[in-house]
Amino acid sequence: MLGKVNHIAIAVPDMAAATATYRDTLGAKVSPPQALPEHGVTVVFVELPNTKVELLEPLGDASPISTFLEKSPAGGMHHICYEVDDIVAARDRLAANGARVLGDGNPKIGAHGKPVLFLHPKDFFGTLVELEEV
Amino acid sequence: MLGKVNHIAIAVPDMAAATATYRDTLGAKVSPPQALPEHGVTVVFVELPNTKVELLEPLGDASPISTFLEKSPAGGMHHICYEVDDIVAARDRLAANGARVLGDGNPKIGAHGKPVLFLHPKDFFGTLVELEEV
Repeated sequence: MLGKVNHIAIAVPDMAAATATYRDTLGAKVSPPQALPEHGVTVVFVELPNTKVELLEPLGDASPISTFLEKSPAGGMHHICYEVDDIVAARDRLAANGARVLGDGNPKIGAHGKPVLFLHPKDFFGTLVELEEV
Repeated sequence: MLGKVNHIAIAVPDMAAATATYRDTLGAKVSPPQALPEHGVTVVFVELPNTKVELLEPLGDASPISTFLEKSPAGGMHHICYEVDDIVAARDRLAANGARVLGDGNPKIGAHGKPVLFLHPKDFFGTLVELEEV
């Protein structure tokens, strides 16, 4: 079921500083920042040859990453996103195995404009898992 | 400087349960467990088309992931490993930018038999970064 790792998301408190570190200290190619107010985040992609790291900074008053940064003010790894061919089939397989999908259990349109699901970290050993249909 | 994401490491308290979840619930290909007593971990690779997830379970009394699991008993994302062409050049670039290398600052032979460095999470927004020369 799991396809490629689409991205590894890292929450950061200061996007300008994080972008400079990945670009200058680590020598990676970074995208311009994209504000996604409907998702409550600003995003910068760190482009690696085989996948990407997605730096996330809170945007607005109700960002989905605010609670994470309250607990880990320096930032940290937030989730892993895997690609799947068929997100409804993925959801049904997860349900059959007792894994919980966050929200109402139905795919939503994610930050890349594609259907996504987030899975409960307690069912995946403390890791927040995102599935994205590609 | 940064090349491919070699692996994303996830610390888990129960390897048998984690392996079953990645294989059966998420439908991924998983390797047999490898005990690496000299590194204080047992490792299972979750093989994705473009990279791999490395599940880590403590092995022995002085595992480098024991402290992490004391703080996060359910488990969680532990580090990201990026490939580099020249680890000594990487170290020198990091030092020139003020980033701290863990340990004595020199590459060690890592769990895959190749030279590695670990970078201080405080210099990378809460993310433990491993560099591996390939």
